Amino acid sequence: MVDTAARTEAKPATPAARSAGGPKVDVAALGRQLLGTWADIRLASRERAAMPELQRIEGQTMAEHRERVLGQLKLLVEQGAVHRAFPKALGGEDDHGGNIAAFEELVIADPSLQIKSGVQWGLFGAAVLHLGTKPHHEKFLPAIMSLEVPGAFAMTEIGHGSDVAAIATTATYDPETEEFVIHTPFRAAWKEYLGNAGLHGKHATVFAQLITNGVNHGVHCFYVPIRDDEGNFLPGVGGEDDGLKGGLNGIDNGRLHFTNVRIPRENLLNRYGDVAADGSYSSPIQSPGRRFFTMLGTLVQGRVSLDGAATVASAMGLTIAITYGNQRRQFTASSDTEEEVLLDYQRHQRRLLPRLATTYAQYFAHDEFLVKFDAVFSGAADSDDDRQDLETIAAALKPLSTWHALDTLQEAREACGGAGFIAENRITGLRHDLDIYVTFEGDNNVLLQLVAKRLLTDFSKQFKNADAGAMARYVVSQTAERAYHGTGLRRLGQTIADFGSTARSVSELRDEASQRELLTDRVETMIAEIAGRLRDARKLPKADAAAAFNRNQNELIEAARAHGELLQWEAFTRALARVEDEGTKQVLTWVRDLFGLGLLEKHLAWYLMHGRLSPQRGQAVGAYIDRLVERLRPHAQDLVDAFGFRPEHLRATIATGIEQERQDEARAWFEEQRRAGTLPVPEKSAKK
Amino acid sequence: MVDTAARTEAKPATPAARSAGGPKVDVAALGRQLLGTWADIRLASRERAAMPELQRIEGQTMAEHRERVLGQLKLLVEQGAVHRAFPKALGGEDDHGGNIAAFEELVIADPSLQIKSGVQWGLFGAAVLHLGTKPHHEKFLPAIMSLEVPGAFAMTEIGHGSDVAAIATTATYDPETEEFVIHTPFRAAWKEYLGNAGLHGKHATVFAQLITNGVNHGVHCFYVPIRDDEGNFLPGVGGEDDGLKGGLNGIDNGRLHFTNVRIPRENLLNRYGDVAADGSYSSPIQSPGRRFFTMLGTLVQGRVSLDGAATVASAMGLTIAITYGNQRRQFTASSDTEEEVLLDYQRHQRRLLPRLATTYAQYFAHDEFLVKFDAVFSGAADSDDDRQDLETIAAALKPLSTWHALDTLQEAREACGGAGFIAENRITGLRHDLDIYVTFEGDNNVLLQLVAKRLLTDFSKQFKNADAGAMARYVVSQTAERAYHGTGLRRLGQTIADFGSTARSVSELRDEASQRELLTDRVETMIAEIAGRLRDARKLPKADAAAAFNRNQNELIEAARAHGELLQWEAFTRALARVEDEGTKQVLTWVRDLFGLGLLEKHLAWYLMHGRLSPQRGQAVGAYIDRLVERLRPHAQDLVDAFGFRPEHLRATIATGIEQERQDEARAWFEEQRRAGTLPVPEKSAKK
Repeated sequence: MVDTAARTEAKPATPAARSAGGPKVDVAALGRQLLGTWADIRLASRERAAMPELQRIEGQTMAEHRERVLGQLKLLVEQGAVHRAFPKALGGEDDHGGNIAAFEELVIADPSLQIKSGVQWGLFGAAVLHLGTKPHHEKFLPAIMSLEVPGAFAMTEIGHGSDVAAIATTATYDPETEEFVIHTPFRAAWKEYLGNAGLHGKHATVFAQLITNGVNHGVHCFYVPIRDDEGNFLPGVGGEDDGLKGGLNGIDNGRLHFTNVRIPRENLLNRYGDVAADGSYSSPIQSPGRRFFTMLGTLVQGRVSLDGAATVASAMGLTIAITYGNQRRQFTASSDTEEEVLLDYQRHQRRLLPRLATTYAQYFAHDEFLVKFDAVFSGAADSDDDRQDLETIAAALKPLSTWHALDTLQEAREACGGAGFIAENRITGLRHDLDIYVTFEGDNNVLLQLVAKRLLTDFSKQFKNADAGAMARYVVSQTAERAYHGTGLRRLGQTIADFGSTARSVSELRDEASQRELLTDRVETMIAEIAGRLRDARKLPKADAAAAFNRNQNELIEAARAHGELLQWEAFTRALARVEDEGTKQVLTWVRDLFGLGLLEKHLAWYLMHGRLSPQRGQAVGAYIDRLVERLRPHAQDLVDAFGFRPEHLRATIATGIEQERQDEARAWFEEQRRAGTLPVPEKSAKK
Repeated sequence: MVDTAARTEAKPATPAARSAGGPKVDVAALGRQLLGTWADIRLASRERAAMPELQRIEGQTMAEHRERVLGQLKLLVEQGAVHRAFPKALGGEDDHGGNIAAFEELVIADPSLQIKSGVQWGLFGAAVLHLGTKPHHEKFLPAIMSLEVPGAFAMTEIGHGSDVAAIATTATYDPETEEFVIHTPFRAAWKEYLGNAGLHGKHATVFAQLITNGVNHGVHCFYVPIRDDEGNFLPGVGGEDDGLKGGLNGIDNGRLHFTNVRIPRENLLNRYGDVAADGSYSSPIQSPGRRFFTMLGTLVQGRVSLDGAATVASAMGLTIAITYGNQRRQFTASSDTEEEVLLDYQRHQRRLLPRLATTYAQYFAHDEFLVKFDAVFSGAADSDDDRQDLETIAAALKPLSTWHALDTLQEAREACGGAGFIAENRITGLRHDLDIYVTFEGDNNVLLQLVAKRLLTDFSKQFKNADAGAMARYVVSQTAERAYHGTGLRRLGQTIADFGSTARSVSELRDEASQRELLTDRVETMIAEIAGRLRDARKLPKADAAAAFNRNQNELIEAARAHGELLQWEAFTRALARVEDEGTKQVLTWVRDLFGLGLLEKHLAWYLMHGRLSPQRGQAVGAYIDRLVERLRPHAQDLVDAFGFRPEHLRATIATGIEQERQDEARAWFEEQRRAGTLPVPEKSAKK
């Protein structure tokens, strides 16, 4: 090889750690823990995802891909793979958690397959299941379950995505004929982005403002046939194909509109609101607002499953990039002939290992989340509080994990260089498909704002019955808090204590209780500060109150993110407590610390400004992360191997060992040349 | 519309700012300034990019897209659009800066068109131009310029991308026949990712280790025919098609390998190294290392043009998202009937406006960069120092702007919600195509490391002839510096000065000199700290020295990033000084401040830990950014309009005003219903 100054001087930073004597990961046991509560169901679903007929073929046209995915849905029906959440009486298993677990793993085969089956059974079918009643189940579910009737979930409109309550499609009751008239008053009210609406959908669950006797009872869901058996729109129904998208092109998204389309009164999915033959409206929930949220709440499973699927996709990207980064070499530094393995570069470790730690946190957080979901939907624990908690967790975790997937897949792509850009190495395709996960089933920013409002509400409840004195004391304590943390007094003390003693700073930072305190304190303080600033806003005129709220919107959303991060850290810490193997526990503790300290590093300015960390301790955060990635580097392959993906799952050429084979061949060639004395002399040496 | 608690309470934060009386942007004048030094050439190229026949058709198959782009290259030749950099004697204009300016704008038509024309004329043709001599120009360039001979630029190998010096393809001179034998010894030495290699390329400029008389003289470039007129590989040449990629599928990337392919001695592009008929080697540059870098340096224009194209693509994404965000409404808050415009939400402003500020900085930095490039390549100022400076600037700016493009296009996509994901709205396609910009023409992380090494070298030059006393004094001053900045002494003083006076903190932060000092100081301090830590590493054994370097790699790369950000800030500030219109100057000053303070916010932890900002001043950074985005919000549309894209350039349905039309239609419908008294009563009101 030619020796030039172009080469980066670098060498493996961790030869010692890689030698014997350090802790070892029990990959099999860790893998079982990662699979979580529904491990067997996940494994069965992964077996399915390993079947070529369920996998994506890169480079298909949109039309071919759509046709293929439709066929794959039929295969899933034949294999009995998608009915787990439906009632036992109809051939299902009433198993909500297991259903989602199986569904999430389908992302391995093709995200289009995952999402199209989600549209059919998780949205369209689930709307009938959760918003309809027994007659609807018996009449509609069998054909939905068998895919005899593919259907669209027609909620979003062009004009209203996040603000579902403001959709403009109307369902006006006509007592003369005992029918609802479904109508689209203007272009902005067209239903939009609906899977199955472009091509395959025969029926749809249509969300519309229910109007009877001149009163608008708000958004309800109606069962509406849209196409005949030849695939032509029924009279009064129209639509357009959304055409090519940035990803998920195996799904036929489209638009629908209705011109005075009449459906029988019984097609109102009437679990939470009904209209009698005479047009009188009734509901088990009196408050229209609560009724609306109860109805939407039954559809939370979409958010649950995206959290899981995004985590699986992140794990796939990291497995590909770390496997490749563990073989690929570039530049010599520590020796004249041997090039460095990419993962031995500090920067490469810094790029991939913290993202691996976050992915681990998400695995553990997601399993707890899914257990909670199952408890609510099985009825084991489904109080109003349980449901609200579930929705808040969903709104906190789904944004974090879906953004993390995009960030991680992008970093994995770049870490694989040009090879990462080739479609056969999978990463770009996954990223294209998962792009939309951050804005569908709830825009991530809107969801985090919902979380923040919940946190604010919880906070203000503390003062609900407080008298003026209590409020005043609170204000004083807040001010004192600011003075204490904000002006350097506490920090100064810390500085003195820390001075010259980095070791002490680090040992406190890696302490579990310290991490918890720092992460918890940040959420609480951010919410308290915002609540303090908004304290008087309620008394203001509506427009001014809204302006005050808006001036805090960015920080509110950041507070919600901090809350989600804390949920993930807590789940990781609980999972850590369950690890029995000592070596695994040690390594996983480093991974958890890397996740926790990564959060501190990300928000370090906040901790410094609020006097929670001294400058010395702040510098220790970064230094300790550097040490953690060095320690974890020898375990990186074990940690991704524990995700349990087989080559049939990854289907990425660069993760098959081909890079190692090429290097071995090259090395053998050079050795042979050296032995034979046929290797040309470098010009530099020749001159000497 | 239905009123529910689901709606976000928010209102336009800047009604006052939007009313008359504030500064106004002279959009036309600002637009001319943004076009930069080669404004007319850019405008002409944009006219071309507006031609449908040069534009991408979304949804074409890879084969169709490749064929279309090849045809478009022929159109460019017919239109005389791509020969500007070639010699006048051959029909060119010897205009290097103008050539790049025109080339960059082609990204508007289709990034595949931009990059494939870059492969043909900017890499393949440029290698002949810059590495060859007059006989090569006369013999090869005419057919390259006319596209009679499409060609590949065969530098990268599967085994070596960033480390070009280590490529393994050999060109061994055979004095018997006066030929070079081009040979691929093993699979890792296959040429890889080459545009035009998959299908269309007839010839190639192949980089290989030049071996003559048993000596390896390092990497040189050879002109090698690869396909006959029927498109079949010539004897000894083989290859594969890279197939589908994550983007840029209008380009036929592929792999090539050579089995003892013989080419005439004269096909060595011999400007920097030649082999006489007897096999003796000669070069005008004695040092093999310097020779190698000189050769590679002639190809810097790829990095220059990516910086410009990425900036244009960012501007397109922002124009689409801000135009849409300025029309799109969602949720009511400040009124009962009127929904809020997305761009009135603080979070939306925070998402888009800082990225707009960075894009402005990049426009100005890029123009200066291009002027520098033109000076070097025209010979007006092409000393060794000039060339090294140019390469350092390229290595600093290209990473920042290409990463910024991906980040900005992603945020723009999300800010447009589901509409952003539909291919016809352009953003996803641009992002897919630009993905590879961050790792080709130099991996971004590797480039930044080069910048950091240059900064370290410059730093150490200060001590080149220093005696032990000078070094000791330096060490002491460094330690004193740490003690001063690092332990809170200076910060404490600042804290006291700032206490209770946010206004003062802000006024200092928006001061140009303060921003410059803070940004400059960070680069200098980071480099000084790293240099200090590496001071003794040179004396260590090679492996230990490499380990020491590696432990600082992450921070080194961050220091290089800081340097690039400073270059952008300086260029923005110089451009600001040239603005004559008062209103424009005021608004643009806010944009520059937003860019500068955005950098401080991003690196706030560093400033706090190093005692450069007190906690109070640190908090003022975020608060002032909030004020700046409020102030800039009314000017957002003007600021993107100044980029000067017409609908034919953007070709994004959502940026055409269609959203406004739909809302106007909906509003008219509601008003008509209200007038007619046919609007149903909300249930809530009906109960009262």
